[in-house]
Amino acid sequence: MDVKQELKKRADFFNQQLEKFLKNGKPETLYDAARHLPLAGGKRLRPCLAMISCEAVKGDITNVIPLSIALELMHNFTLVHDDIMDKSKLRRNIPTVHIKFGEPTAIIAGDLLFTKAFEAIHQTQGDPCIFKNVEYGLIDCIREICEGQELDMEFEKRQTVKEDEYIEMILKKTAVFFMYAAEAGGILGGGTKEQSQALNEYGKNLGLAFQIHDDYLDMSSSEETLGKDIGNDIRNGKKTLIAVHSLQNACGDDKKTLSKIFGNKNATESQIKQVYQLFKKTGSIDYAKKTAVTYCEKAKKQLEKLPDSNAKQILIELADYSIKREK
Amino acid sequence: MDVKQELKKRADFFNQQLEKFLKNGKPETLYDAARHLPLAGGKRLRPCLAMISCEAVKGDITNVIPLSIALELMHNFTLVHDDIMDKSKLRRNIPTVHIKFGEPTAIIAGDLLFTKAFEAIHQTQGDPCIFKNVEYGLIDCIREICEGQELDMEFEKRQTVKEDEYIEMILKKTAVFFMYAAEAGGILGGGTKEQSQALNEYGKNLGLAFQIHDDYLDMSSSEETLGKDIGNDIRNGKKTLIAVHSLQNACGDDKKTLSKIFGNKNATESQIKQVYQLFKKTGSIDYAKKTAVTYCEKAKKQLEKLPDSNAKQILIELADYSIKREK
Repeated sequence: MDVKQELKKRADFFNQQLEKFLKNGKPETLYDAARHLPLAGGKRLRPCLAMISCEAVKGDITNVIPLSIALELMHNFTLVHDDIMDKSKLRRNIPTVHIKFGEPTAIIAGDLLFTKAFEAIHQTQGDPCIFKNVEYGLIDCIREICEGQELDMEFEKRQTVKEDEYIEMILKKTAVFFMYAAEAGGILGGGTKEQSQALNEYGKNLGLAFQIHDDYLDMSSSEETLGKDIGNDIRNGKKTLIAVHSLQNACGDDKKTLSKIFGNKNATESQIKQVYQLFKKTGSIDYAKKTAVTYCEKAKKQLEKLPDSNAKQILIELADYSIKREK
Repeated sequence: MDVKQELKKRADFFNQQLEKFLKNGKPETLYDAARHLPLAGGKRLRPCLAMISCEAVKGDITNVIPLSIALELMHNFTLVHDDIMDKSKLRRNIPTVHIKFGEPTAIIAGDLLFTKAFEAIHQTQGDPCIFKNVEYGLIDCIREICEGQELDMEFEKRQTVKEDEYIEMILKKTAVFFMYAAEAGGILGGGTKEQSQALNEYGKNLGLAFQIHDDYLDMSSSEETLGKDIGNDIRNGKKTLIAVHSLQNACGDDKKTLSKIFGNKNATESQIKQVYQLFKKTGSIDYAKKTAVTYCEKAKKQLEKLPDSNAKQILIELADYSIKREK
């Protein structure tokens, strides 16, 4: 099975539904700004996860189209606002919304995407009590994402962050969305309580593996180039698992060097390289890799509670893919 | 009847409910930022309108507490984000959220209030189908408010705006909230379809009267002082009904003068006074006053469809108050 192919098939189907849903409107500038990012592609991981989870409990995926659209719009809303906060200029290889449309319109465009996500999930058919519960899950999810984003920003300013604090932050900022996508896909697919709970745990561990592998990728891919992003992350004191582990495990002079350079806005190129070497010396890059593998295994373990199917196989391979992908 | 006293009684009751709902949370900074504005007081007009509308159809106001909290939080979310866009420094006599907590935290605090508004409305008891419809009304409302805010910003950059465009903008930006508060209050109070529809129309006309009177107040109260705000509104080319009417009705040299100064960031104090005199000469300040009265009358007319009650009397006097108040 080619998991990338399976994801692409669903992403293509999803894209058609999204385009139908996210029509133009007035004022045009606002709708252009709101459509800018979601219609520029992306992996569509959250919608795919909802669809495949629905399939894994033998559900009909048309039941989760409104949910899938809501997930993707909500994800894009967080990206639009995060990009303003982080002053990012590019995303998906195009200018960010605030760069293209200005900050005020970008703020409203994000708010509009938030609204449209609720509009989308309201198209869910079936029992209104199930709808109410599923929608409440989405609300809970967004609350946690807001909390996670604030934590992420606060961690940058702090000298030390413990590993469990880091895990809590990425759980809120990234993993809850995967958790919710998989669980809600299971519920709307008509899965049992036990199945939906297993999908929730699967999504949670998948999300953690995914985020930690992201941190790992950023760091390892730049071994030779030590690209700008890594330099900026180190200068901004960005608390990835690698940084958290290294700050905790470095000893003596290494600890002093790390504390001095990490989070120093004016760190030189050679200091950045020094930090990178220390990350390696404390075994933190390997540690992150191993931690991602552990979460991946935990995710797959949950799937034992689901009946065998093509969809289940995709979920297994998606977990493996999440820690093997190179971008 | 003292309408201000009746409003205060309900606002005090509402404030207790809001404080219970909007508890502290973690990260503390985020929750402090989110609580900053909603717990700093305010007229609580939207919650009061929902409660009184519920009473006017003989409903139990405990049914509309979740709705009332949702309305106030949603209103505050729009204020927090609008203040960032407008770079406002003060609101309700305290520093705006972005001034006190920084812009990134203010953006998330607004997003969190948006989320908490949905959390609040989810506490609505009763038939889940009615809940679903009422909640969808709120979603629709926020979409229109986003569109209205964008229109307002776009109008500032445009040379001319027609009166019906202005009315559409304030309908979306301000009146839809009043419209929704009154209608949803009626629905959750168990009113008939005709009653809820009458409350919707009442709220719409009340909202329009309220906003136009606001524009009028800003202008007339500053007759002697010509305060900073008016100067800034004229320099920014803010399209109030007064400005729209004057730009449309000024002739010859007056038109040229108005076009030259209105929207000119560097207009002098004496030029601001000149514009003010032209607003008077074209009868635009009186015109705004008369238009607000017309909407107030339309609002009251709708109330004929409701049975007589103390609540109905408050709604009548609230309409009168909306165009008589001095702040």
